[in-house]
Amino acid sequence: MISNKTIGRLSLYRRLLKDVINDNQRNIYSHELAGLAGATAAQVRRDIMNIGYSGNPNRGYDARELATSIGNFLDHPDGQRAALLGVGNLGRALLAFFSGRRPKLSIDAAFDIDPKKFGRVIHGCHCYSTEDLATVIPEKNISIGIITVPANEAQKACDNLVRIGIHGILNFAPVPLKIPSNVYVEDIDMTMSLEKVAYFARTATSGGK
Amino acid sequence: MISNKTIGRLSLYRRLLKDVINDNQRNIYSHELAGLAGATAAQVRRDIMNIGYSGNPNRGYDARELATSIGNFLDHPDGQRAALLGVGNLGRALLAFFSGRRPKLSIDAAFDIDPKKFGRVIHGCHCYSTEDLATVIPEKNISIGIITVPANEAQKACDNLVRIGIHGILNFAPVPLKIPSNVYVEDIDMTMSLEKVAYFARTATSGGK
Repeated sequence: MISNKTIGRLSLYRRLLKDVINDNQRNIYSHELAGLAGATAAQVRRDIMNIGYSGNPNRGYDARELATSIGNFLDHPDGQRAALLGVGNLGRALLAFFSGRRPKLSIDAAFDIDPKKFGRVIHGCHCYSTEDLATVIPEKNISIGIITVPANEAQKACDNLVRIGIHGILNFAPVPLKIPSNVYVEDIDMTMSLEKVAYFARTATSGGK
Repeated sequence: MISNKTIGRLSLYRRLLKDVINDNQRNIYSHELAGLAGATAAQVRRDIMNIGYSGNPNRGYDARELATSIGNFLDHPDGQRAALLGVGNLGRALLAFFSGRRPKLSIDAAFDIDPKKFGRVIHGCHCYSTEDLATVIPEKNISIGIITVPANEAQKACDNLVRIGIHGILNFAPVPLKIPSNVYVEDIDMTMSLEKVAYFARTATSGGK
């Protein structure tokens, strides 16, 4: 079983390798990649062994081959599609950010309860009524949910996604979601993070962390 | 010394209390707030004692008073201002999201190296040349940095912020930043989070987490 943290590091390695490749560097040693990723060389080697790739002791890893191997491991060969629930400020911001970033990972439908948004195309993504969730999601073969509704609607949005067979949820609503054990949730609370930074920016001078 | 996690929970309680107040509920017991926040009642009482507020054993906390007390603790009375470095897709998305959300916490300047962006106003925020960092930041009394530049420019952006006296940084670039011990950094890697969710959405059915 590959851990949550390993998957996170593999995602990071792949993105760091893109910079390396763009700089026309052909090979990379585990200690170099470790330096970029803030990990140890042993950690990098273990993570990469986990996906069945191995470097050459003299030249390190072939950067392109390694990036491809990580891609083959992380990505579904046919790609994966996500649905975004809640087209407010945050939802729109995320549509703008993720739009076209990943060929194998796209937001293919957005849902809202506001009729003024139905049928609109926002940053390339079609907006539907939340009532159409159970038809649109299987139709578009969507396997990921992104929750950007207000806090007090988040559990309901989550329950709806779980009911129609979604097993992975990225939750931006500032509430802990109750989920069955076969569903995976990642929480991101940007307001909390900014408020923490603000607090410690004031107290950090006196050593707070 | 109040911990990172306590500050995070206080930020969450305050936002949950806003919903409670909007629903015209006047008082709230620690176990109710705990239920909303996914914490224990003992934890909630401890966190709130930490900021020097106490409830009434019969009626619980006064929701408005508690929200105000948390605000007095988390917010600087004169407010705090942030600068955003890197006005790409993500930077623009964050300007849209944070714009006007918090009266006491605002993004007051954005910086980029692209001359086409200098002088533009994006979601209410003026965009400057990165070369003007050292003059604009003290002038506008900015104490927080938000890093949204590409990975390979993030450390330099961080160093520049630290050099001019910024002690709190919210880092969206997917690289670990090297910082002095009196600077506080929170990292958010949205692409990593989405890639994790995608991976576990495929494997979660077989029990992965």
